[in-house]
Amino acid sequence: MITGKNYIGNQLSAIGNKTFKTFNPLLNIENEWEITEASTNEVNQAAKLASEAFKTYSKISGEKKAVFLRAIAEEIEALGDDLLQVYSSESGLPNGRAMGERGRTLGQLRAFANHVEKGNWVDASIDTAQPDRQPMPKVDLRKMNVALGPVVVFGASNFPFAFSTAGGDTAAALAAGCPVIVKSHPMHAATGEMVSAAVIKAAEKTGMPNGVFSNLNSSGIEVGQALVQHPNVKAVGFTGSIRGGRALFDLAAKRDEPIPVLAEMGSVNPVIILPQALKNRAEDLAKIYSGSITLGTGQFCTNPGLIIGIKSEGLTNFVNTLAEEIVKVEPSCMLHPNIAGAYESNKANAMSQSGIKVLAGYNEDVKPNYARQVVTTVEGNTFLNNPILHHEVFGPFSLVVQCENKEQLEEIIINLEGQLTGTIISDDDEIRTFTSIVNALQNRVGRIIFNGVPTGVEVCPSMLHGGPYPASTDSRFTAVGVDSIKRFVRPFSYQDWPNDLLPIELKNENPLGISRLVNNVRTTSKI
Amino acid sequence: MITGKNYIGNQLSAIGNKTFKTFNPLLNIENEWEITEASTNEVNQAAKLASEAFKTYSKISGEKKAVFLRAIAEEIEALGDDLLQVYSSESGLPNGRAMGERGRTLGQLRAFANHVEKGNWVDASIDTAQPDRQPMPKVDLRKMNVALGPVVVFGASNFPFAFSTAGGDTAAALAAGCPVIVKSHPMHAATGEMVSAAVIKAAEKTGMPNGVFSNLNSSGIEVGQALVQHPNVKAVGFTGSIRGGRALFDLAAKRDEPIPVLAEMGSVNPVIILPQALKNRAEDLAKIYSGSITLGTGQFCTNPGLIIGIKSEGLTNFVNTLAEEIVKVEPSCMLHPNIAGAYESNKANAMSQSGIKVLAGYNEDVKPNYARQVVTTVEGNTFLNNPILHHEVFGPFSLVVQCENKEQLEEIIINLEGQLTGTIISDDDEIRTFTSIVNALQNRVGRIIFNGVPTGVEVCPSMLHGGPYPASTDSRFTAVGVDSIKRFVRPFSYQDWPNDLLPIELKNENPLGISRLVNNVRTTSKI
Repeated sequence: MITGKNYIGNQLSAIGNKTFKTFNPLLNIENEWEITEASTNEVNQAAKLASEAFKTYSKISGEKKAVFLRAIAEEIEALGDDLLQVYSSESGLPNGRAMGERGRTLGQLRAFANHVEKGNWVDASIDTAQPDRQPMPKVDLRKMNVALGPVVVFGASNFPFAFSTAGGDTAAALAAGCPVIVKSHPMHAATGEMVSAAVIKAAEKTGMPNGVFSNLNSSGIEVGQALVQHPNVKAVGFTGSIRGGRALFDLAAKRDEPIPVLAEMGSVNPVIILPQALKNRAEDLAKIYSGSITLGTGQFCTNPGLIIGIKSEGLTNFVNTLAEEIVKVEPSCMLHPNIAGAYESNKANAMSQSGIKVLAGYNEDVKPNYARQVVTTVEGNTFLNNPILHHEVFGPFSLVVQCENKEQLEEIIINLEGQLTGTIISDDDEIRTFTSIVNALQNRVGRIIFNGVPTGVEVCPSMLHGGPYPASTDSRFTAVGVDSIKRFVRPFSYQDWPNDLLPIELKNENPLGISRLVNNVRTTSKI
Repeated sequence: MITGKNYIGNQLSAIGNKTFKTFNPLLNIENEWEITEASTNEVNQAAKLASEAFKTYSKISGEKKAVFLRAIAEEIEALGDDLLQVYSSESGLPNGRAMGERGRTLGQLRAFANHVEKGNWVDASIDTAQPDRQPMPKVDLRKMNVALGPVVVFGASNFPFAFSTAGGDTAAALAAGCPVIVKSHPMHAATGEMVSAAVIKAAEKTGMPNGVFSNLNSSGIEVGQALVQHPNVKAVGFTGSIRGGRALFDLAAKRDEPIPVLAEMGSVNPVIILPQALKNRAEDLAKIYSGSITLGTGQFCTNPGLIIGIKSEGLTNFVNTLAEEIVKVEPSCMLHPNIAGAYESNKANAMSQSGIKVLAGYNEDVKPNYARQVVTTVEGNTFLNNPILHHEVFGPFSLVVQCENKEQLEEIIINLEGQLTGTIISDDDEIRTFTSIVNALQNRVGRIIFNGVPTGVEVCPSMLHGGPYPASTDSRFTAVGVDSIKRFVRPFSYQDWPNDLLPIELKNENPLGISRLVNNVRTTSKI
């Protein structure tokens, strides 16, 4: 049952008087549930509870955190088809996607459970004392990662499960030992409430402190702003637009005590197709990219919005085939009328720029909120001189840049903003003669792909989902994979601390048998 | 020979027309050397060279970087006593300290050489492809740390060697593969030039690209501001005041592309003396702390500026003995007349606060620039209500807070700003009955010390030198020890990348035999 209320810790609460409804973009009607926005009072309560919970939750064992994370996964699963239906009715995304994304979300929770169940992840390091060292005795120092404090997670519009309520940011923060306050995404607040209920149920069943998780509703920006500025909050996770992420980053940087905002934002995910590849398989590539551009209505953050090649017969074949293929794709529904509206206006703005030619676009009538895909093309020089063309058009839109030569291609890459991904399409040994282009691309991206498509973000330790600004606000962290826990921890040193008072990961006996750096040697031995 | 010029890459340069001199605080006279400030043109040249150098330097082997770092250490050593004399004449610090700090600096350079010589530090992670996985094939992903880009390092006033020109920040950045531009500290610009000459000599001898290191002079804030705002600069290392660090942090956060500023700033390093310890060894503790407060003229960032206890006979004994002991210490010279002047005015300001009592202070006449130490005391309640008393007085000054009870002690700790260190002085099992106080202290500091003094920052992997704001601008990183390299790297993923084009650390053959996480298992094996 959906109440439309906030979770302030374990309690449902709706003391505010502002309400809103979510929207079913497929049916083009409002959903029935009335959602109540969190009040200032509720924001403060959630923050206070989170700080209280932090005192105990930051110190519980990895084993107990793992039990909690697995219980969350179980409780989400137990919601069954009801959850999937609410998800689809608030996002327009089909049932198959709902199932896939739920699987990904459960997988993330369980991966973090496995990651923190034993203590290896704390990066334990021990330097033992040398009381007789000359000229000064050496003290005993032991270091490990500890939780940063309460974390605010902003739900993403385009991933109601995997990057929202109990998504990657929440799983990472909870695994780290940080209580989480979710600022629920207003487009899927009912989905958020259902998932929150599962988290709360899991917290209660596994004996977690009240306040380890809260979920706040809001259709505007005030609740999010209040959370980011709240002194009890110590870090922020965000997935969304550059404008939104940068606004939160700026707020956090202006605090008396600045806090990190880990925002994963926009990206056009450039794809460079080298000349031989264009010559030998332009048509195949066009077909593949026609699929990648329109996948999930172009609403993935790794959507290939920019394709770059050097003018040639091959490139001409590629654009012609892409034009033919792209219109064959059946349009699909976007997440929300606002997103569909933004797509239309951003697309129109891009298409109105001087020198832009429309290669092809879907021109038939479509249902409300459906996105009509478009591919466009532009000369390299025009692209270089117009920053508007460098910006993401969120949706099934792509721009093919036709360069004069290798030098211009390199110049374009050097002048790109930071990106989540960069892709090189190459035939055989061709890439070896494009070293400077590969190096330039590496400097602008977080992940570089050989002969593939940027869409599809594998959840595994070797994934880096992030990149130079504005792909993210801090390229030193990933938003996907177990290493994303590093966003929410800080190393902490104990000097000459009594062995029995040390955390279990640092005790002489090494009761967990974890891998530690002891006097510069990696070992699982005791001391 | 000291030219007073800047190093723009390997070239000495002095095209600006603003000059300044450094000061010998012991003799209370200006030093002879005329230092020329860097011009805007030179700032831009250094930044351009650094970006050029980054292209190759970021990709050279760990072995070559180690050779370079060791050569820097050798060249500094080769400067011999001349360097130590210039150091002392620009800082007033004695020869013994100069030798000790030089040793620390050489040790840091060599520790980073050892750290990056093999490839373990890159945190290599590999997930191999599963082409047959259902429902989607799994791609091959490989991740490792890569250099962030050119780094600007601000020299610190209080460590002309260890936290300046070729100090910890520079060593960490160079080890990471980042070119460095030093904004030399104006109080020891000649020392900075000599060390820079050694770095340049080492760079030339070991074949490093021009621009891998530059050294810019400036007596004001403009050169530093220009560097932090320069688009080619990708990170900043700083050690100094809260005001200075925060100003750079704010500038960097406002850039179109925000960059990390790793600033290690102020700290009063609270010391909590528990009741039994006060009862049993108040006098011994007072003697030890009298030494720690005045060590290095109180100019260490871990100087104990705040001592807290619960009112008792023991605490009375402690303050009485501290009062007796502190005046026995012979005053010593501060780094510069400006620092001595700031000490006098900050001390006077603290002493003028309502409720502050002066326990004792050195009252005899002293030479110019010598600091007269003072210890003061205040009631817990007065301390709680006056934020001015929470601020650092840089120099040999300490405040003893006398609390009513355990609850007030805890409240005081909770309300402290972030600190580099916190110390608990405890007898036997006493600490076990003060769990909430220990936990509260842990939340406010980067390093917690049992029965010791906060001064003395061991350079080893388990050291955390940093802490919650304003001890540092990002508590997730350390400024001391080999892990400080993490400030200047970002993880980077290769997807389906050809094996022979991968960096050596990620190749199937694992030619370096490094430890890697392969399909979630740690191994040194090849694939």
